[in-house]
Amino acid sequence: MKVHNFNAGPSILPKEVVKKAAQSVINFNNSGLSILEISHRSIDFLDIIEKTTFLIKRIMNLDDDYTILFLQGGATLQFSMIPYNLMNQIAGYLDTGFWAYNAIKEAKKFGKVKVLFSGKEKNYTYISTNYHIPCNMDYFHCTSNNTIVGTQMKIFPKTSIPIICDMSSDIFSRTLDFCQFSLIYASAQKNISSAGMTIVIMKKNILGKFRKNIPSYMNYKTHIQNNSILNTPNVFSIYTSMLTLKWIKNQGGLSLIEKKNQKKAKLLYDEIDQNNLFENKIHKNNRSNMNVSFFLKEKNLEKEFNKMWKKENIIGLEGHRYLGGYRASIYNALPLKSVQFLIEIMKEFERKFS
Amino acid sequence: MKVHNFNAGPSILPKEVVKKAAQSVINFNNSGLSILEISHRSIDFLDIIEKTTFLIKRIMNLDDDYTILFLQGGATLQFSMIPYNLMNQIAGYLDTGFWAYNAIKEAKKFGKVKVLFSGKEKNYTYISTNYHIPCNMDYFHCTSNNTIVGTQMKIFPKTSIPIICDMSSDIFSRTLDFCQFSLIYASAQKNISSAGMTIVIMKKNILGKFRKNIPSYMNYKTHIQNNSILNTPNVFSIYTSMLTLKWIKNQGGLSLIEKKNQKKAKLLYDEIDQNNLFENKIHKNNRSNMNVSFFLKEKNLEKEFNKMWKKENIIGLEGHRYLGGYRASIYNALPLKSVQFLIEIMKEFERKFS
Repeated sequence: MKVHNFNAGPSILPKEVVKKAAQSVINFNNSGLSILEISHRSIDFLDIIEKTTFLIKRIMNLDDDYTILFLQGGATLQFSMIPYNLMNQIAGYLDTGFWAYNAIKEAKKFGKVKVLFSGKEKNYTYISTNYHIPCNMDYFHCTSNNTIVGTQMKIFPKTSIPIICDMSSDIFSRTLDFCQFSLIYASAQKNISSAGMTIVIMKKNILGKFRKNIPSYMNYKTHIQNNSILNTPNVFSIYTSMLTLKWIKNQGGLSLIEKKNQKKAKLLYDEIDQNNLFENKIHKNNRSNMNVSFFLKEKNLEKEFNKMWKKENIIGLEGHRYLGGYRASIYNALPLKSVQFLIEIMKEFERKFS
Repeated sequence: MKVHNFNAGPSILPKEVVKKAAQSVINFNNSGLSILEISHRSIDFLDIIEKTTFLIKRIMNLDDDYTILFLQGGATLQFSMIPYNLMNQIAGYLDTGFWAYNAIKEAKKFGKVKVLFSGKEKNYTYISTNYHIPCNMDYFHCTSNNTIVGTQMKIFPKTSIPIICDMSSDIFSRTLDFCQFSLIYASAQKNISSAGMTIVIMKKNILGKFRKNIPSYMNYKTHIQNNSILNTPNVFSIYTSMLTLKWIKNQGGLSLIEKKNQKKAKLLYDEIDQNNLFENKIHKNNRSNMNVSFFLKEKNLEKEFNKMWKKENIIGLEGHRYLGGYRASIYNALPLKSVQFLIEIMKEFERKFS
């Protein structure tokens, strides 16, 4: 059965990654063991960690100033770990959406937060580039892609303080000068792997001189000292991320991935813009290439549209429960054909109901 | 290839669980999607959470006073979450091994810890039952099974304060009156599922009246309010735990599982005791039915013994790196045949080298 999977996360993974992951659940590397049954201290797994680290650095063009951690607890645990480890007195945050706002809430438990820009009044449909970052702050925090409303930062600020970026929903989707960031984090369940794992990429030299008595699991230093195996990590998700990174490399790396993503996004936004029945509410400079949100201009057609796409084995097109409407998440692994198929449905819907 | 998997964790899982998990990575419930690609807010996944919760309560004979959480971060994050949520001033801990000691270290970051018994001087080979629990403490913490050295608590104390138990390495392996515990936690990678998930079973009424401003991910209340989907949980590991729980139920529940485990452990301890070349150093009342540690009486035979079991596709028999020697982890899913096979090897070794 052919399913078009527009889920926002957990979401579609490359077919060959899924296939190889499933094989390894049965018999990993011809060992006679499942990947679920191997020790996290085995040579096999240490090799997986090493290869995954290498691939991340290679793909993002990062040098040995950076260290890579494979943690648990999602971006949500990072919202606390970051101020726990890095906040002394005050940090600057951008409030660009639901998750960005959650990061702010958590940071406030540890010190002062200065919100340098908030898109809240404009329902998060717009991200300003016109804000000032005072250089006496401990760090600057932003969210590169806002999954719920469907916005994306295209430009990052220049500043002398560390830039920390939640890239959960657009990591590995485009080229960027990744060296501008001191810490990047991303939960795995969108462009990387199965849920339950978080990649943290950090410049070693930013590490906290401030708090003592940090709970071990919350302490980046402890994880670095233990090479991500302070305790048992999510072996399967780390392994699967290695498979995805190999796939990215084989696709031609981020520059080719980015081109494909731009093409898919442009096709879909063009259709939304020219289709009489739909609209996208995001400021054109901030439209996300990962999560394309759109609304029916006439809400009473909802039932008809839902009937139409659901019978065609399209899934995950519902907008976030806070917003309603529709959202097509078009991550790396979503084939161009699925976007084209959705566009066909939208065109057919327009012909019938316009 | 037939492999005998004595890994301490991640460790062997039931064959049919592994097979079904692998099928679901390819095509979950005939949906055309991988289990890795379904939404954690889909009806399918809510159904998995509900069934898993139901099975845990059923198998442990727990009523609705208890709530079940599926978290990340392993037992290590629980070492901090427990005092964060439940410690006001002082708590009592048993120091029965490496992980128990780690739990103590973390708790000390939040308040006073009174160590009620420490087995350290006897190299953790013995667990006293002769200690007093003052009833002015916030809670009493113990570790039911000590994976590294191979001891197990057979008797739990009576006390009016909440008993908190780390059951990471023997959960679902025996019958107990589980209602005596106010909070049970266990990382998944031994008797439950794939690594990267932690089950927390708690009496709702013990929840913290003490600290405010707990980081969201560290706050049990937040997870309870959100039914374990505060953020994206480890979908695959929760799903696989449901499969294992069904397997446990089909095996006849904990009483039959316990009998099988006792039989396997007895066979192996008997062999160690009667074999001239090996010894077990654990006090007989505290021998673990999950992790059987043993040593060569003459260390110079190590190379010969290692050669012998390694060529027979036995894996994971090395003792913990802190201890040396050998450790056979004989969790629920390890077949009796693997224990019998190991015993054959030990006998053959005795015949050759005694």
